Amino acid sequence: MTELAQPGSTPRTRVKRLPEKAVTDRATAYAVLDAGLVAHVAVVTDGQPYVVPVGYARRGDEVIFHGSSASRLFTTLAKGAPTCLTVTLLDGLVLARSLFESSMHYRTVMALGVCRRLEGDEEVSALLDLSERLMPGRTAQARHPAPQELKATITLALPLDEISVKVSDGPPDDVDSDLVDPVYSKIWAGYVPLTETLGEPVADELAQGIPVPAYVRDWHR
Amino acid sequence: MTELAQPGSTPRTRVKRLPEKAVTDRATAYAVLDAGLVAHVAVVTDGQPYVVPVGYARRGDEVIFHGSSASRLFTTLAKGAPTCLTVTLLDGLVLARSLFESSMHYRTVMALGVCRRLEGDEEVSALLDLSERLMPGRTAQARHPAPQELKATITLALPLDEISVKVSDGPPDDVDSDLVDPVYSKIWAGYVPLTETLGEPVADELAQGIPVPAYVRDWHR
Repeated sequence: MTELAQPGSTPRTRVKRLPEKAVTDRATAYAVLDAGLVAHVAVVTDGQPYVVPVGYARRGDEVIFHGSSASRLFTTLAKGAPTCLTVTLLDGLVLARSLFESSMHYRTVMALGVCRRLEGDEEVSALLDLSERLMPGRTAQARHPAPQELKATITLALPLDEISVKVSDGPPDDVDSDLVDPVYSKIWAGYVPLTETLGEPVADELAQGIPVPAYVRDWHR
Repeated sequence: MTELAQPGSTPRTRVKRLPEKAVTDRATAYAVLDAGLVAHVAVVTDGQPYVVPVGYARRGDEVIFHGSSASRLFTTLAKGAPTCLTVTLLDGLVLARSLFESSMHYRTVMALGVCRRLEGDEEVSALLDLSERLMPGRTAQARHPAPQELKATITLALPLDEISVKVSDGPPDDVDSDLVDPVYSKIWAGYVPLTETLGEPVADELAQGIPVPAYVRDWHR
């Protein structure tokens, strides 16, 4: 675990617990955001938080995502409700000699702020960038958004001004006494990596016999 | 996509957008919860939501999770702040003929409510169940929580009274006109599955030469 400078942190995002896991370097945070596909976004209505998954893309110092213009989550965010967007990548299970020190390998970024609604050309460009980030190569082939599709969509940008990042990796962090204990020092400890893999593309009925495009074949995770 | 009865839904959790993706059967929701490892939990402080990842386990009609007793998130939840716990499993990328209809395969459960703090024997039993769910077999071998470790831990149970579940699967749901369009009907469309895989266990320094336990070898995702 590494600890770095905190360029984008504020008292609200500074990691208070387990500070050794706070890697507050902006490049690290952006690398985590660039490796994920789904973020969890919160909105509060009458004091009740709701947490909803969204596909997203980082674009410069913003995260862009979109949803239905009939969704309460999205209309509330478009009106400037304070939000939190969190991306978590799970990298493994960590087996310490005690259950207390057992944990997970993960990378997580939390961004706090208020979204800006993108409209007109800016919305179209953001939607194409979002598609291209999630499905590289696809925007050159698939049909672009029609006016009524844009009307049905709210596209939001969350500035990455107030962010924190935590990275948990490495061997288990056991209690010293367990490392010399006659029983617990003899048990296996370490970690089991978890990885996400893309499988074989599955064509729909109409696409039977059409070769899988090279850009799809090139995808890997 | 299937739609079923809504035993645990309320006006707050009823899925308004894309109702065809709302599979509100409790068994489906529990299967999703039992397949995930990490949930995203929200807490609101001064109107600002925070979304934090936690390892969790379903136990009957509750979800249990734990954190540091010095964490503001956990002390606020222990005091009965309204929360939302969301679990999302990403199963694939869906390539429609239009960018608008392109999406993802996913399973997601949202639970709203107020947590109950578990203490004494109930806390110990919940922590063992949580460990056993995340690392099956490990609780028989690793050291159980010591009194000072329990003191440093807040263990919470969120009742699964108010829940919703959405499942997106199957082929892309293309606009009819794209299916007969001379250009777009000729492009490949379908989905690319995403799976999570456990890799080879990695022993720490002290565990070099100790065989990987059979229960760890049995894990699969």
